[in-house]
Amino acid sequence: MKSQYSDLSPLFEPRGVAVIGSMKEGYGEGHTVIRNMVDFGFSGRIYPISRSNESVLGMRAYPGVNDVNDPVDLAVVVTPPATVLSLIEQCGRKGIKAVIVETEGFAEAGQDGARLQRQLVEVARRTGMRLLGPNTLGILNTSNDLVTEPYPYGRNKPPSGGIGYSSQTGLLTFGVHPIRDKACPISKMCDFGNKCDINEVDLLPYLADDPGTNVIAMHLEDVKDGRKFMDVARRAAARKPVLIFKTGRSEAGARAASSHTGALAGDDQVHGSAFKQAGVIRLNSWREFWEVPKALSLQPLPGGNRIAIITATGGAGVISLDAAIEAGLTPAIFGASTVTQLERLSPRLVNNPVDVGPLMAVRDKPFTIYEEVVPPVLADDNVDCATIVCHLGPLIVDVFRRLAPQIANISKPVTVFGYGIDLALMEESARQLQGLGLPTYLDLDLAVKALGIAAEYARIRSDADHQGGR
Amino acid sequence: MKSQYSDLSPLFEPRGVAVIGSMKEGYGEGHTVIRNMVDFGFSGRIYPISRSNESVLGMRAYPGVNDVNDPVDLAVVVTPPATVLSLIEQCGRKGIKAVIVETEGFAEAGQDGARLQRQLVEVARRTGMRLLGPNTLGILNTSNDLVTEPYPYGRNKPPSGGIGYSSQTGLLTFGVHPIRDKACPISKMCDFGNKCDINEVDLLPYLADDPGTNVIAMHLEDVKDGRKFMDVARRAAARKPVLIFKTGRSEAGARAASSHTGALAGDDQVHGSAFKQAGVIRLNSWREFWEVPKALSLQPLPGGNRIAIITATGGAGVISLDAAIEAGLTPAIFGASTVTQLERLSPRLVNNPVDVGPLMAVRDKPFTIYEEVVPPVLADDNVDCATIVCHLGPLIVDVFRRLAPQIANISKPVTVFGYGIDLALMEESARQLQGLGLPTYLDLDLAVKALGIAAEYARIRSDADHQGGR
Repeated sequence: MKSQYSDLSPLFEPRGVAVIGSMKEGYGEGHTVIRNMVDFGFSGRIYPISRSNESVLGMRAYPGVNDVNDPVDLAVVVTPPATVLSLIEQCGRKGIKAVIVETEGFAEAGQDGARLQRQLVEVARRTGMRLLGPNTLGILNTSNDLVTEPYPYGRNKPPSGGIGYSSQTGLLTFGVHPIRDKACPISKMCDFGNKCDINEVDLLPYLADDPGTNVIAMHLEDVKDGRKFMDVARRAAARKPVLIFKTGRSEAGARAASSHTGALAGDDQVHGSAFKQAGVIRLNSWREFWEVPKALSLQPLPGGNRIAIITATGGAGVISLDAAIEAGLTPAIFGASTVTQLERLSPRLVNNPVDVGPLMAVRDKPFTIYEEVVPPVLADDNVDCATIVCHLGPLIVDVFRRLAPQIANISKPVTVFGYGIDLALMEESARQLQGLGLPTYLDLDLAVKALGIAAEYARIRSDADHQGGR
Repeated sequence: MKSQYSDLSPLFEPRGVAVIGSMKEGYGEGHTVIRNMVDFGFSGRIYPISRSNESVLGMRAYPGVNDVNDPVDLAVVVTPPATVLSLIEQCGRKGIKAVIVETEGFAEAGQDGARLQRQLVEVARRTGMRLLGPNTLGILNTSNDLVTEPYPYGRNKPPSGGIGYSSQTGLLTFGVHPIRDKACPISKMCDFGNKCDINEVDLLPYLADDPGTNVIAMHLEDVKDGRKFMDVARRAAARKPVLIFKTGRSEAGARAASSHTGALAGDDQVHGSAFKQAGVIRLNSWREFWEVPKALSLQPLPGGNRIAIITATGGAGVISLDAAIEAGLTPAIFGASTVTQLERLSPRLVNNPVDVGPLMAVRDKPFTIYEEVVPPVLADDNVDCATIVCHLGPLIVDVFRRLAPQIANISKPVTVFGYGIDLALMEESARQLQGLGLPTYLDLDLAVKALGIAAEYARIRSDADHQGGR
């Protein structure tokens, strides 16, 4: 009998992976899975399983998993539904510890599929094997470059980073989000699919322990076991931010969730108060799910909720303050020595938001004003965090190349909102700023809200510490 | 004495424009304004005013506005603050009907600037000239290709369309938003700047009358004259949607607004109930300001609030339903004949959200399923509007090229949410879909919320009609 919260290292850190699926070049799902692993540069061994091919992409193929003599920790199965049961039976007999069933056509497809899915679970339980899926894109791990995506994907490798993402829909995984182009800093990703075995209760402790993960972002349509969930969520949230995007909040949404994965969604208010009790923070939209975690992952936590706003346009200052108040932040009032320093640059700079726009207009190198304003403002004892508003482009990237180490030294969280008129240039600059460790947003409200959520987590954490939580 | 709500056609539709500012090539603001007008292809006459140049970009230059003998309806002034007063005095004497003062350094810069600004207003009043600004980027008009931006801008010409945008910050105008790359369909844009003369009370009636504008989207930090505003807003909202993004909602935000434009922002709750009474709809974020109006501009109004969701992923269906409920929409229940039609394609398609994903997986041309599903669903009498969720790329663009005329014929509003893994490809596809008249979002919640706002406006409009409003 496996332990209650089983170890997921065979899933994410397998020494060897068997891939079972059509090996037809350019079309076969098995071939595509292997192609993606090779493109990513997976550091473990790959064993193509194929009766009709002797080799796949230069690797020796084996007729069955049993024919592989080396250690195989994980199998990826992407064959027609009717073949899956006997294949995973073989995996279990071989002693494979984890299997990802990517195939569709199980509980989400009706009664027959649900029955077949239950049989998969029986085999997994009987053979002591953990099962992810079915109906899943599987996982991604940037620390060993493992990816199991069954669609062409290789060139979309995201930057390695600290966010452990998981989801109950492919829409919220690597499968269909431009994570590379948006420079999402990712440690692990997991598509739960139909969640017949491996679920949030397994993943939360694994990610809480994972040294490469510093933020956990999870999309859930249902919670499988409320009691266990509360236990693991509380433990995880005591160690790192746990941000949950629970969908099926509305009754209509909950019904739809139940019909597409066969899961029972439960009452949203119950989820809400359970999350709160566990110290979990809710995200409320597709957009927040993708954009908020990076701020908490790339930046330290704030010591309080007092925000400074440094902006090149007065209008953005006003919008930022509105967003700050709505996110539970409060505008910082600068200390006397900061005011003196700012006053030396211009008497118009002493208030928060600090509007550097007018000074930029009269300088030869307009963007250098940020280098003079950001460090004293951020270092002020009355400031806990800051949002910087700027025109994105090569000039500001140069400025932040010099500023980033100072910001990191001051060790208070910063987000950047960038605007401009050329979208491609803005996105390229945003990627470069994120490469410097600065979470960069093309959406002003979100740049501020992300800091609000960081402050909320810092408060939860400090309350827990005071109550003797670890 | 000019009429209470003065005609803004000299501002937006001048026969001739005098541009007064430095004509130094590549640097001078006056030169840049003219360069932008030429790049846009402004259809009126341009008169560079310069003592030191005989010609500018091949156009004859004049030492003063008085030296121009042709009709000049508009002057654009972008000279140092100290020179502005005497220049607009000359414009007034010449009989120019509107002047845009782009120069910074007036009320937003302190006491002296405020005094100077009051003097500008006196001159304008005395000479019967309307004044936009100061501290503004001016205007943009896609129907005559007039743009007055003083920064290099020419290649960023947006597509011509129906949204009349105006704002109290450059951040929310053409100045620093990628309106071309996002394919924003724009009729007019106006940056109020310090709003010393021309303001919302002038612009609302002008845009309400403008046949090229079908949606009015306005950012306000303050309302200059509550009584007049209520009058013009009510009249405008009875003719086309008026969407207002009021910032300075928080007390802190309101204080900041007052400091950067010298305006008094007032109490937010008062604004809220006044807007409601006038039939104006509030937008709540920078993002909504840019993204919501296009749905109302490109699509007809819905007859009610029943939404259909057609999606390629079940997870997106759930998220859409949550967003729909939160936006005041309700999921449509399909009529018997629609169910029969859908059932013929697959028994799994009969519920709303319609998840076409599983059928796509088994088709040679997966995207064609949209052509079979969208028309019957949208035509259903129980459906008022629809959000379509799809993978963006050339294949879906092809499908929508064939679908768009059918959608237009059915005459119910549709929004598209598109996902993908390649951001540049997604954005290019989104531009193409918007070119077909389909408002396309890379943010799922917003794609749905835009329809919620369209339904809200339709309700306001129908209530007004029942109460005998025009």
